[in-house]
Amino acid sequence: MKITKFGGSSLASAQQFRKVFDIIKSDRDRKVVVVSAPGKRFSSDTKITDNLITLAKEVQTGQDIEKTLAVIKERYVGIIEDLGLKQEIKNQLEDNLKKMITASYSSNNQLLNTFKASGEDNNAQLVAAYFNENGLPAKYVSPEEAGLLVSAQDGHTRVLSETYANLERLTEVNECIIFPGFFGVSKENQRVTFSRGGSDITGAILAKGLKADLYENFTDVDAIFAANPQIVDQPQKINHLTYQEMRELSYAGFSVLHHEALRPAIMADIPIRVKNTNKPELPGTLISKTRSENNYHITGIASSRGFMSISIAKYLMNEEVGFGAKALNIMAEHNLSVEHVPTGIDEITLILRADQFKNEADEKELLQELQEKLNADKVYEEKELALLMIVGEGMISTVGTAAKAMASLAKAGINLKMIDQGSSEISMLFGIAASDENSAIAALYESFFKSKIPVEEK
Amino acid sequence: MKITKFGGSSLASAQQFRKVFDIIKSDRDRKVVVVSAPGKRFSSDTKITDNLITLAKEVQTGQDIEKTLAVIKERYVGIIEDLGLKQEIKNQLEDNLKKMITASYSSNNQLLNTFKASGEDNNAQLVAAYFNENGLPAKYVSPEEAGLLVSAQDGHTRVLSETYANLERLTEVNECIIFPGFFGVSKENQRVTFSRGGSDITGAILAKGLKADLYENFTDVDAIFAANPQIVDQPQKINHLTYQEMRELSYAGFSVLHHEALRPAIMADIPIRVKNTNKPELPGTLISKTRSENNYHITGIASSRGFMSISIAKYLMNEEVGFGAKALNIMAEHNLSVEHVPTGIDEITLILRADQFKNEADEKELLQELQEKLNADKVYEEKELALLMIVGEGMISTVGTAAKAMASLAKAGINLKMIDQGSSEISMLFGIAASDENSAIAALYESFFKSKIPVEEK
Repeated sequence: MKITKFGGSSLASAQQFRKVFDIIKSDRDRKVVVVSAPGKRFSSDTKITDNLITLAKEVQTGQDIEKTLAVIKERYVGIIEDLGLKQEIKNQLEDNLKKMITASYSSNNQLLNTFKASGEDNNAQLVAAYFNENGLPAKYVSPEEAGLLVSAQDGHTRVLSETYANLERLTEVNECIIFPGFFGVSKENQRVTFSRGGSDITGAILAKGLKADLYENFTDVDAIFAANPQIVDQPQKINHLTYQEMRELSYAGFSVLHHEALRPAIMADIPIRVKNTNKPELPGTLISKTRSENNYHITGIASSRGFMSISIAKYLMNEEVGFGAKALNIMAEHNLSVEHVPTGIDEITLILRADQFKNEADEKELLQELQEKLNADKVYEEKELALLMIVGEGMISTVGTAAKAMASLAKAGINLKMIDQGSSEISMLFGIAASDENSAIAALYESFFKSKIPVEEK
Repeated sequence: MKITKFGGSSLASAQQFRKVFDIIKSDRDRKVVVVSAPGKRFSSDTKITDNLITLAKEVQTGQDIEKTLAVIKERYVGIIEDLGLKQEIKNQLEDNLKKMITASYSSNNQLLNTFKASGEDNNAQLVAAYFNENGLPAKYVSPEEAGLLVSAQDGHTRVLSETYANLERLTEVNECIIFPGFFGVSKENQRVTFSRGGSDITGAILAKGLKADLYENFTDVDAIFAANPQIVDQPQKINHLTYQEMRELSYAGFSVLHHEALRPAIMADIPIRVKNTNKPELPGTLISKTRSENNYHITGIASSRGFMSISIAKYLMNEEVGFGAKALNIMAEHNLSVEHVPTGIDEITLILRADQFKNEADEKELLQELQEKLNADKVYEEKELALLMIVGEGMISTVGTAAKAMASLAKAGINLKMIDQGSSEISMLFGIAASDENSAIAALYESFFKSKIPVEEK
């Protein structure tokens, strides 16, 4: 049994709905379909989720909602009419929207969550109706009905463990299940959305709960590429990735699959296949626990901007038991997440995402506090950093990988501000100036993928 | 004015005393001489400090002390007789030893400290007598008289800041001052030794207190070498090092100068010159704040064994604010000093000196505590690691250094378990298996020093 999830662009128009129908019809193992809200039909189009966020804000602030509401209705009605669905469906949609707008909410946050969730929820109802009208028995199942329970803490939505037992009951449904992605329900029976792109998470949760054989993730790219296609011209497609490789790549900018979608799949050891709705005949990319070796050792090259570093220097720091703990405690007290901690003898550097600082005053205060509480000789920052990551299973057992990577970066004149390798066996991390990002990616891709000379085996 | 310190081998015999005398006599700026206890005369010889430790233990446990005492006396008496010093000096020495043995001590630790300190103390008295008899007016000054005050906390002896003001008074002494190294006095007027090799620290403290122009450190090597001469055949001599380069090199095994001796010199910006007592005509190695560039960018290659790593894996660790702090706090609670913290996405590795664990049970308990308190997916160790360090000012501004280092290590088949660069601008650290240490050092030396092809400048 397969869980099959479709992204926003795969359900952006009637034409896309037809492709989805054909895909599901062609394989009887596709028993559960997870749907996103209609996404962009063309690059300047607006996603329905964004329209819904606008609508929510208008309702909250008492502004006129007619224009925004009309855009939303038009998108759904356009699909309904193009697909030739019954008037009944249109009425149901309008009814849903009216109820959503006129309901009372306990907080602005609850209102926002409910509005956002409706994008997927209404789309799932449409898909179910369309499938049924075309002879494919389908049943819309809501997270409430299925018992997809979540909790929201510190702005982070997490699935509750009892969800998995609840979901098992869905195996008794005979029809093809159409399930809205992106949200679950709290124990107080309120809808709570995952972070943006969270339909991927819903699909993974269903795959684990229903013990699927495969989690198919349909999107609008042929496969996961070895490097960002906006930087590298026509990069290689990756046929097969391990979970861990995907995890590391998604950390540093590979966004095809939501990084939180991996955990349920890993826990239940369910392979994921990323495919293109527009070219379903292509194999796409398989993500699973293990894979056979390839010759290049490097599977992908990722990068991510928006990092900064804070360095703390203090003579004989290494003899001071607990110095690093003290420094990291101060960061935690400021609710700052530190991503990497390269250390010298008398110096420690904290690498963090720069957007964690709300304003300059907070930042200044932190630096002063570090200086004073640690009795440091010097505390200084460096901004506009990018993290560059090369990822590949078996990399660590290949002696020359680090050397090859460094040589190609050196040749391209890239100054390495940080090198961090040691904890993950399958990745290596470089800190560079954000302005060097594109040339660094290009240089690494050239060296590892274009030359196609396998590195020497140990 | 120069502070001139002589190591144990420089004062191991009458012949060595004569060399010391000639060195001091040849330069009127050499106003203060810091002396070690007599060291080894030949490789199978015993240092007097080790004899004194044995003696202290024999006294503490009520064993027979005659044999050990005779060895100690014989060493000093041999020197006294060879130098033709007066009987008076011999009597004074015997008197000192008798008083030391029969005195009462408030603790075993106090007894051990006093016994150990006597090695330098008696030797300083001998040197002063010898200088005076040969027409060079000299005055033995004890740490008590000079006010070299120290405190001992957690087994670590530290100089008290008031020492420096006290030492200034020594500038009024007209004779050449002969000062015993290795120990100071507590506020309770008890002798407390520094860690082994601590006469270097005494010399640096005197240099700062007396505002010397130069701190000369005489030992038995021609200079500081670019790599360990036991691994590399006839390595290059280093003419000039910066303080920071010396600090980093001494961290990873360069032991010519005690690493704690650098701080007072750095604070007062006093250059240090390491010289050979047996070849005083050689320039040795200068250590100062800055130096002119050389062509090789790498000044030295050091390594140190005895490290281990503890890795902690937890999915989505990077999103957990304060995870690193929690891990390091547990280490600090166990009084374990963590030297480096390479991090992956879902994994953090703690690099520490393995000798910090008293027994296997403590180690096991720690691992279990890390696992439980951090709710980790996996906690595992790796033992028998060595840290390899390449050091050189300006290294970071040279694009190709990292690549060159890695290429030579890769060519030698060395698997890098950790790479840490980013905090210090002048060093790069590699974690390797201890069994790879020699071949790694040899490969790096070959690549950076033997080929003599300067790396490309940025």
